[in-house]
Amino acid sequence: MPQPIIIALDAMGGDKAPDAVIDGAAFAVQKNPNIKFRIFGDEARVRPLLARHASLANVIFHHTPDSIPGDMKPSAALRQGRNSSMRLAINSVADGNAQGIVSAGNTGALMALARLVLGSLPGIDRPAIVSTVPTMTGRCVMLDMGANLECDADNLVQFAIMGSLYARAALHINEPRIGLLNIGSEEMKGHDELRAAAAILRETPLHGKFIGYVEADQIPHGDVDVVVTDGFTGNITLKTIEGTAKLCANFLKEALQTSFIAKIGALLARGAFMQMKSRMDPRAYNGAMLVGLQGVCVKSHGGTDARGFANAILVAAQLIEEGLNERIKDEFAKLYGALPDAALKSIESDTVL
Amino acid sequence: MPQPIIIALDAMGGDKAPDAVIDGAAFAVQKNPNIKFRIFGDEARVRPLLARHASLANVIFHHTPDSIPGDMKPSAALRQGRNSSMRLAINSVADGNAQGIVSAGNTGALMALARLVLGSLPGIDRPAIVSTVPTMTGRCVMLDMGANLECDADNLVQFAIMGSLYARAALHINEPRIGLLNIGSEEMKGHDELRAAAAILRETPLHGKFIGYVEADQIPHGDVDVVVTDGFTGNITLKTIEGTAKLCANFLKEALQTSFIAKIGALLARGAFMQMKSRMDPRAYNGAMLVGLQGVCVKSHGGTDARGFANAILVAAQLIEEGLNERIKDEFAKLYGALPDAALKSIESDTVL
Repeated sequence: MPQPIIIALDAMGGDKAPDAVIDGAAFAVQKNPNIKFRIFGDEARVRPLLARHASLANVIFHHTPDSIPGDMKPSAALRQGRNSSMRLAINSVADGNAQGIVSAGNTGALMALARLVLGSLPGIDRPAIVSTVPTMTGRCVMLDMGANLECDADNLVQFAIMGSLYARAALHINEPRIGLLNIGSEEMKGHDELRAAAAILRETPLHGKFIGYVEADQIPHGDVDVVVTDGFTGNITLKTIEGTAKLCANFLKEALQTSFIAKIGALLARGAFMQMKSRMDPRAYNGAMLVGLQGVCVKSHGGTDARGFANAILVAAQLIEEGLNERIKDEFAKLYGALPDAALKSIESDTVL
Repeated sequence: MPQPIIIALDAMGGDKAPDAVIDGAAFAVQKNPNIKFRIFGDEARVRPLLARHASLANVIFHHTPDSIPGDMKPSAALRQGRNSSMRLAINSVADGNAQGIVSAGNTGALMALARLVLGSLPGIDRPAIVSTVPTMTGRCVMLDMGANLECDADNLVQFAIMGSLYARAALHINEPRIGLLNIGSEEMKGHDELRAAAAILRETPLHGKFIGYVEADQIPHGDVDVVVTDGFTGNITLKTIEGTAKLCANFLKEALQTSFIAKIGALLARGAFMQMKSRMDPRAYNGAMLVGLQGVCVKSHGGTDARGFANAILVAAQLIEEGLNERIKDEFAKLYGALPDAALKSIESDTVL
């Protein structure tokens, strides 16, 4: 029998907490019965929800008096969040009582608390948020999705290395194609830091192939497996994909209601529409890892429902099972000797919050 | 009878030039017979194409020995492009022989040549590329789409003013909602220049309403009429929309082929699919104005076909008819007294290429 995977849950984070968290936990164990939970939250609100699921009868529950509001600044969360569900859930990973933590709460606070409590992996200056998006041929890994608004060349190089290992662990792509997001494929295009990162990546031995600059329309087309960008651009790209997918679904719905014949056609093709919709469903891609930390920390979309939250839990379980963080640690240790000076310089400097 | 609109065409720019340009011109006059052309290009290649269209029998044709390659740097285009189709077409606008110019060629070269030859409008530091994207409720104006990789607060404020006037002229939205693209709606989010621009825009009298920060998924949702951003982010947002729309169409096509019943349904709903597809068709939105110049200059997508190029011509004709540049000039003159110091400062400084 495989070892159980213990995941800490912040039951109070997200727009639909604690309901979506607890119901999501129940969905997740249906799919992966190997997962056990430590759940952190307000007893009065969480206990009745736990009682609804027989499969959650054996979770370890910790009452926490506070929770981190969605609009709290990271600095305030660090000062005032000591007894919050989010902080105590992260603490349980640092203490070795859980192997990973999942929260749908305040992203900035989660990143700040996780960096403080867990610390960064050796060689990583700045942890990043990594997620996947749908493409014509499968899925594509993207990072950073919003943790670091501005990134220098070394940050981008580190993201590329972490992203390629993520693609191996989460998507089982052995030789991922790694691209830097830019507004043209020509050498001269883009910000200075992109050109500097490209120069370093061409010299760096990677587990994958650096294919140079990619443009945004190449992502859904499936031309690249790992897209590296700063957190501002990554976040906007992700939200543009989500918004445009909804727009297309909406246009289709409207078009199918314009005539009687179209309505009959829509009825017959209903299964196909559901299939198309599910391939674009953001819930299916929910669960963004804060990669580069000493511990698995997964951020769920704040507005997701129980199905989406369950997916974030399953992502965390998979990354724990695949030993992603150990792989990153090993690879950075191996790469130290092989990295060019510019990347080494920043790796040597200490990480500051 | 209305005055004819004279548009100069760079017949040699774009992947499908000169065919798409000449066939596009023929499509455009079908829709707006008021348009007359001055066409600049290689006689041996263009004349036979013109001969195919009776409606183009009266165009004024100028043989030009050179053309600007797609990968030529803007600085090289300025030095070496004196006898190119692009440069001579722009010259005809400066000389008063045409009221606007349309090119599907090298964007950087077009911007550099147009700035040099036409000059910027008073009060505009940096011209921007403006285009529209489809939304649930209509269309949304976006700028900058790629002319200025990095923008300071004053640039963004000027873009907001130009964009709101563009929305009035091109989309007939009288009180457009103007938003700054950011990764969150909270005050504290985003780059410094975004926060500074927001502070200025809150104090600036606008023809429209400044609604603060908008996130990328709000664009397709129709929450905003004018989206202001730097050229790097704008270009990536636009290409993400295009790529995702194609992905959705592809997923739908695949889904409809999975069963016999779905195929029947697809056949019946064929008209509806075509309607959905046409609403997302990038050709329908083709034609990005280089706004802020002393003359109407419209960039067509390099890869577009004749239908798309025709749309770019129609956009140029509409902006000439609506007198957009005169409106921008008037508004900036009126706003001079009303703008806060930070914006005035940059308006006073001379524009350098």
